[in-house]
Amino acid sequence: VNGESTVLRALDLLGTFAFTLNGALTAIRVAHLDIIGVVTLGMITAIGGGIMRDVVMGALPPVTFVDWRYLAVAAVGGLLAFAFGRKLQKAALPIMLFDAAGLSLFAVTGASKALAAGMGPVQAIILGAITGVGGGTVRDVLTQRIPTVLRSELYAIPAMAGATVSVIGVRAGFDAYLAAMCGAVACFLIRLLGVRFGLHAPKPR
Amino acid sequence: VNGESTVLRALDLLGTFAFTLNGALTAIRVAHLDIIGVVTLGMITAIGGGIMRDVVMGALPPVTFVDWRYLAVAAVGGLLAFAFGRKLQKAALPIMLFDAAGLSLFAVTGASKALAAGMGPVQAIILGAITGVGGGTVRDVLTQRIPTVLRSELYAIPAMAGATVSVIGVRAGFDAYLAAMCGAVACFLIRLLGVRFGLHAPKPR
Amino acid sequence: VNGESTVLRALDLLGTFAFTLNGALTAIRVAHLDIIGVVTLGMITAIGGGIMRDVVMGALPPVTFVDWRYLAVAAVGGLLAFAFGRKLQKAALPIMLFDAAGLSLFAVTGASKALAAGMGPVQAIILGAITGVGGGTVRDVLTQRIPTVLRSELYAIPAMAGATVSVIGVRAGFDAYLAAMCGAVACFLIRLLGVRFGLHAPKPR
Repeated sequence: VNGESTVLRALDLLGTFAFTLNGALTAIRVAHLDIIGVVTLGMITAIGGGIMRDVVMGALPPVTFVDWRYLAVAAVGGLLAFAFGRKLQKAALPIMLFDAAGLSLFAVTGASKALAAGMGPVQAIILGAITGVGGGTVRDVLTQRIPTVLRSELYAIPAMAGATVSVIGVRAGFDAYLAAMCGAVACFLIRLLGVRFGLHAPKPR
Repeated sequence: VNGESTVLRALDLLGTFAFTLNGALTAIRVAHLDIIGVVTLGMITAIGGGIMRDVVMGALPPVTFVDWRYLAVAAVGGLLAFAFGRKLQKAALPIMLFDAAGLSLFAVTGASKALAAGMGPVQAIILGAITGVGGGTVRDVLTQRIPTVLRSELYAIPAMAGATVSVIGVRAGFDAYLAAMCGAVACFLIRLLGVRFGLHAPKPR
Repeated sequence: VNGESTVLRALDLLGTFAFTLNGALTAIRVAHLDIIGVVTLGMITAIGGGIMRDVVMGALPPVTFVDWRYLAVAAVGGLLAFAFGRKLQKAALPIMLFDAAGLSLFAVTGASKALAAGMGPVQAIILGAITGVGGGTVRDVLTQRIPTVLRSELYAIPAMAGATVSVIGVRAGFDAYLAAMCGAVACFLIRLLGVRFGLHAPKPR
């Protein structure tokens, strides 16, 4: 069990790193912010979803805030993005990939944490999706864009799919690590397919 | 008492349904979102205010999240709005009416819940108003509009008036259901009068 | 100890008053809101940061909500700004000064409260900064501007500097009042220097 939670923690920190790079590069590319703005937006993008999940679950103070590793990973990621971001800012591809990676990792770790805290499966899936899309939603609101989760392209669906795979896996008795990995891969692939082929959920006629 | 709380629960679910339709139709009309965006914005509009109230009261996890009926009503409402919204989207009137109904119902149920949780009367009135205006404020921020509660037309005032009627009614010994109904009707009428006659609170000269 | 906490409470109420005037004047100047919008935006600006701090710490319901003095100070400040704001609205200077005063006072009182609640020093500094910048961030999101904390000019740095001085002072054994005053003055001066000389943190080339 301890090994499993270590693996989930590692996946969670990896998601934190990916979202930090995404948020920081967004700050450079879209909003032309200075170093403080870049690091701040990176950190908010990285820990916003986890804070929303923990607030809703009543697990306060949030783990992203109490466990120094989250803040350290986010701060280092933000500084790295600031230092090396100039080369990356022309390429929208890494920004999208970091976002998809963070989305996938947070959807499954968020769902696992919610299950472990005793939430029901539907609540766990929704909390996984909130963890995945929450930080990016705050990022978009702060930089004055309509959040990705509301706009076109598959975004909430892969997050809920990944969380669902993870929850079903755990409930079916597989170990949490394997279930989380399968869910994260499923989310990541659906998200990339959605972006690559410009897939949309149906729109009103 | 149990009968009363059943009635309040019913009013609360009715408010959830009204705000879901409002948020989902707003998503279709203003932001041209796909089905996921429509359902998501509907659900956020419907349960955002209640989540704010419960976070401030420390009543976590929020009841809108634990009680599956809220999520079910919001999901069904969002899908109905998506399916039938095309005919409604030209008419701003139903959007406004659903908003006024949700505002009225949430203002009084929010105030009642706050009183029942031991908050003082002023806090209960403010929490009722937060419950009423919270979801719509998130809706407006996510679709890049200045929130209705800050813009012209009477909006916060009817919510606080309805909550006040409800709080005074309960404190004066009337049953919570009757007090809530009177408060909701008061809020609804003031709101409609404000919209109909373009009433504003005073502006700075 | 009781005397100290009385002084900190006074500084906190003073910060509440300053941020209320700032938010209310912003509502008049930028968004042309009516009296309800002016008072509401003033109150949100004033108590938003403290609510964020208390939510993250799990100290619910927030003190700004339970202690009637915060709401009273914010309501009176909003009405005063509405009544006398016409003369002030042409001058951007008082808006900036009230903002800097609120930022400085909240950064140190937020950090002190976090320390007193048993948070570690890094968490206390971050929570102090959140208390300082939180209300203004909500103000900017609601009035459709990119938050000051992300835009140019030193803003987050003075808040963190002030909180750091306050935390180091308390840890070094000075009394909380003296530490808070030194931190607030440091934050205020750095902020004013940043605005006066148009100082920015470094931007990406």
